[in-house]
Amino acid sequence: MRSQKSSTDTPTLEGYDNYGSEVTLDIPPSGLYTSSSDCIVDEANPKAERNCCTATNEWLKDTASNVFRKKTLYKRLPICEWLPKYNQNDFIGDLVAGITVGLTVIPQGLAFAGITGLELQYGLYSCFMGCFIYVLFGTSKDVPLGPTAIAALLTFQIARGDLVKTILLTLLTGLIEVLMGILKMGFLIDFVSGPVSAGFTSAASLIIFTSQLKDLLVVDTKGDTLVHMWISICKDFRNISWNDAALGISSVALLLSMRVMTFVEIGPKEGKKSWQRLLQKAIWLIGTSRNAVLVVLVGLLGYQLLQSGTDIFRMVGYVPAGLPAFKVPAFSQITYTNATGGELVVMEETFVDMISSLGAGLIVIPLVSLLETSALIQTFADGKPCDANQELIAIGLCNVGIAFTQGFRGNGPLARGAVLNASGVRTQMSNFYTGIIVMFALLYFTPAFYYVPKAALAAIIVSATIFMLQYRVIKPMWRSKRTDLIPGLGAFIACIVLPVQIGILVGIAINIAFILYSAARPKLRIETLEASNGIKYLMLTPDRCLIFPSVEFVRNVINKHSRKSTLPVVIDCTYIYGADFTAAKVISMLIKDFQTRNQQLYFYNLQSRVAQVFEGLNKGLIVIYDVEHLEMVLAGKANDVKP
Amino acid sequence: MRSQKSSTDTPTLEGYDNYGSEVTLDIPPSGLYTSSSDCIVDEANPKAERNCCTATNEWLKDTASNVFRKKTLYKRLPICEWLPKYNQNDFIGDLVAGITVGLTVIPQGLAFAGITGLELQYGLYSCFMGCFIYVLFGTSKDVPLGPTAIAALLTFQIARGDLVKTILLTLLTGLIEVLMGILKMGFLIDFVSGPVSAGFTSAASLIIFTSQLKDLLVVDTKGDTLVHMWISICKDFRNISWNDAALGISSVALLLSMRVMTFVEIGPKEGKKSWQRLLQKAIWLIGTSRNAVLVVLVGLLGYQLLQSGTDIFRMVGYVPAGLPAFKVPAFSQITYTNATGGELVVMEETFVDMISSLGAGLIVIPLVSLLETSALIQTFADGKPCDANQELIAIGLCNVGIAFTQGFRGNGPLARGAVLNASGVRTQMSNFYTGIIVMFALLYFTPAFYYVPKAALAAIIVSATIFMLQYRVIKPMWRSKRTDLIPGLGAFIACIVLPVQIGILVGIAINIAFILYSAARPKLRIETLEASNGIKYLMLTPDRCLIFPSVEFVRNVINKHSRKSTLPVVIDCTYIYGADFTAAKVISMLIKDFQTRNQQLYFYNLQSRVAQVFEGLNKGLIVIYDVEHLEMVLAGKANDVKP
Repeated sequence: MRSQKSSTDTPTLEGYDNYGSEVTLDIPPSGLYTSSSDCIVDEANPKAERNCCTATNEWLKDTASNVFRKKTLYKRLPICEWLPKYNQNDFIGDLVAGITVGLTVIPQGLAFAGITGLELQYGLYSCFMGCFIYVLFGTSKDVPLGPTAIAALLTFQIARGDLVKTILLTLLTGLIEVLMGILKMGFLIDFVSGPVSAGFTSAASLIIFTSQLKDLLVVDTKGDTLVHMWISICKDFRNISWNDAALGISSVALLLSMRVMTFVEIGPKEGKKSWQRLLQKAIWLIGTSRNAVLVVLVGLLGYQLLQSGTDIFRMVGYVPAGLPAFKVPAFSQITYTNATGGELVVMEETFVDMISSLGAGLIVIPLVSLLETSALIQTFADGKPCDANQELIAIGLCNVGIAFTQGFRGNGPLARGAVLNASGVRTQMSNFYTGIIVMFALLYFTPAFYYVPKAALAAIIVSATIFMLQYRVIKPMWRSKRTDLIPGLGAFIACIVLPVQIGILVGIAINIAFILYSAARPKLRIETLEASNGIKYLMLTPDRCLIFPSVEFVRNVINKHSRKSTLPVVIDCTYIYGADFTAAKVISMLIKDFQTRNQQLYFYNLQSRVAQVFEGLNKGLIVIYDVEHLEMVLAGKANDVKP
Repeated sequence: MRSQKSSTDTPTLEGYDNYGSEVTLDIPPSGLYTSSSDCIVDEANPKAERNCCTATNEWLKDTASNVFRKKTLYKRLPICEWLPKYNQNDFIGDLVAGITVGLTVIPQGLAFAGITGLELQYGLYSCFMGCFIYVLFGTSKDVPLGPTAIAALLTFQIARGDLVKTILLTLLTGLIEVLMGILKMGFLIDFVSGPVSAGFTSAASLIIFTSQLKDLLVVDTKGDTLVHMWISICKDFRNISWNDAALGISSVALLLSMRVMTFVEIGPKEGKKSWQRLLQKAIWLIGTSRNAVLVVLVGLLGYQLLQSGTDIFRMVGYVPAGLPAFKVPAFSQITYTNATGGELVVMEETFVDMISSLGAGLIVIPLVSLLETSALIQTFADGKPCDANQELIAIGLCNVGIAFTQGFRGNGPLARGAVLNASGVRTQMSNFYTGIIVMFALLYFTPAFYYVPKAALAAIIVSATIFMLQYRVIKPMWRSKRTDLIPGLGAFIACIVLPVQIGILVGIAINIAFILYSAARPKLRIETLEASNGIKYLMLTPDRCLIFPSVEFVRNVINKHSRKSTLPVVIDCTYIYGADFTAAKVISMLIKDFQTRNQQLYFYNLQSRVAQVFEGLNKGLIVIYDVEHLEMVLAGKANDVKP
């Protein structure tokens, strides 16, 4: 195919591109070769070929000079790039967007604190410091840094509502993210596939939904896994609080109908009149701020009821006013519990105990956080890539900051990001205004939260998480690639029967097993062909690279089919783009197998970098690059074949 | 390339072959397609496409009918196939080979018991029951089942010389092997590459060599890792026993020079006279039985010295006579140790404690055992594949048997296998004769072992293990594929600084990381081409399948290069042999990216199975299978392109 093209046009080969570097290559010659030094395409990345020591030295030099370059500064502190150009339009756009998000994040922060099992003020403590830090380090204007339902669920499943552990988890995962970013480990999210991510998110949404029934209906939802929680709910169902349930369910209904307001179109699609545009914007704003509207409404209702002496709802109750103290998180704790005998048991948890109880969460949380945030960034990036490593650093630093103000994890959630984008955000500065609003709420509004019924907060979470259930992805997955349902369903089921942080790892492991299987079991096309001079031969075409897990299998298939006849065997290596030492060893065994049987064996169209690998071990390799030469060799006419 | 061939000859496409099943395919048409239903190559394995339920039912049916078939019986009990044809020649060949191996395995069994940290008779206990069972279930005539240096080392590193644990380890790993064989998990050895295997073997040889210095020089070799052992040796070096060292080193010298005898050629290569042939065979036999010869020689020497009252060597001492009791291994144990205060401490180890202390060894030992045995089988199989699953079952059952006679692990070692093959073995029956010889030795020869100096046994191990150091593999690896040195060296270093069973897992993990990296970072060729009608376009050619870890990377590279110009972009999909749902999703994002930029995007030569995956999600996919059509489309002349 390549040769067809070069006959019709003038190819400008810029070479294989990896890591963005370009290499100029020669145009492939054709003919018969047994040596690879004078051969087609070359190693894609010449850097990899270099001596190890030189590479390390250069890397050190590069790193040293990079650290002080302007480009690096812009990369590490993106604010340096956009702040000098900041103008009045940016200010207005960001202010409106920041306040809109602020009105969303305050009720959500309170509600998400309920998921983590902490007191509600910690939800607000998580909502401002991260915003300020993201302004400095964040790469995307569309990220509203703050608590998310999934981060809250993971926090609860790992720290189990223990305040000291929660804050330590926030700090440590933040530090790990910074480290991962510096070590350029952002590529790790590539290993979380679409199906696994969908399965995990759906399971998380079900778990969050179920856990909120505790406040929505006031039933018991004890248990670690979804199954246990539902058993507990069924057992406790007759103790349901009908008042709270009625309020909760009607709150959900209200929120869902207000959500529709954000899609309402007033007047024609194009060429709206100005009053139409204004009206639509007002309706959109009310719809977007539905959580805040609900909280205000039910808060007023609760206040009225309590004033009139009617205590029919479970209220949020006292939320301490004021900003949290800025302090270093604790690395160990002493807990006092009452033993069954009534004695006071003093338990000391050291730093090592704490770390081991946080366990896999320390890796899963940064991964999920990056997954959430990069999904958000890419949604609004118009194809521009997301700098995963800088985002890791930014979100990591934000969470270190949040830990010092005693909050729990914050990421960049897709839903609030969409609000931010739709509100006309212009730069990362919007986060600053959101942070100010939250601090304002902490300083002056906390007494008002007293009268908000808990069922309403649960309704906020429920009406947000039901859209996280990704059942819609099943149909296209079925149409596109059915086997991808296996890792998806695997992750979903694992997240439901195991703690979610383990569940997602199980999903990733299933997916990696697929990659390994694909590396281990290539497909071989087997054809009996006839050359123009009437000589029949067996053509075997492996469809991918030959590496250690597959090469023994390929040798067995080739031997099995070659034994059946005495025809010469030609192995079409067009699709073999890589090989390793184990492959070279097995190929030399294959050559010996054929020599023992006195059967001819030729390698057709072997790429030079693969030929180099094989020739490190094999002297008897006969490589042919051309159909005519192949036919001559088969007819025994070509004497220029070096054996 | 495929089309070039079909023009010159009549292809009989037998289709992609996977799992040995052949599929008849249509000949690829060429032209312009946007739908994949009427397209070239099809899914290789139609079974995989089937409904899940049907597949399970059929599997159950297949399994049920398979169990009672003759072929299955022959597969599971290979003796049924070869025993009916057993004749006198087979008997003589096997008898000679079996006795030759018996003379090798008796001194080796005693010596390897020294590696495991058990008393020496346990070495002989490991040498007969496995032989008998292998006769029934083994697939290869070249496997002399019995203790190996590597199995003994792993046993020591896992069970630490605890007899109950050692026997339990033998039993459990045997059962796990049987289970793995039934579940067809023999493919797992494919994931141990040549370099990792070489690194592991070399490290093991160094460790075994070092541990034997304890008996060879009589110095202290305390410590878990090689470094600690050498520190201990250096500290204790002045306490060296010069008598034992002299005997040990001269024994090694004797064994190495006798080893040369096995290569001696008497007379011409072809057409030897009968006395020359006889002489050569006698020399070869003496050389091969060098271990037994040494033991007899030093035994006589020791006996003479002790009789004359000269006690200058450390002797093996009392070895209990008679066969071991046949009994069920213990699943728990109670140990009594003296605490520092002098009190007697009673420790009970339950089954769970034992299992958790055996840990990773329960998986690594079966893997290494299969690795050793299949390497041996393939060396003498002339290209016939090794039935890894049946070998797992056979070796597993052998070790279950060995556990009941209180022995430690046995595998099929390459060195003794070579002796067996060279002695003219004809069937698996040779193992039977070896087993009888060992039982004979246990019944009648044990008093003689009293006088064998320990240094001689150490010499036997040392002179065997120095050939396991695979330094020769480095040069071809360097010539063939340098990066393969990384997993090789990684496994070597990990096995030296960590317990070997963990070290080999580290090596495998490094290798798997390579596969994952290769899956995650394909190479892209970027070319600016000019069609015959003068239209320039950008041709991007990814070199392998598009799956979740790579597809985001590919999208970024494509976007990066496409943004630089407004040229139409053609993605050459010739080499994309597979894709998944995540890829389909990202491709639809890519199509949107191009629509936003108003840039043309075409997919060239997309394989139908990949097209199916993409089309599950993308309506706007334009696929072209022909250069002329591509040029027409670029010129805007082809209206038959469905958008």
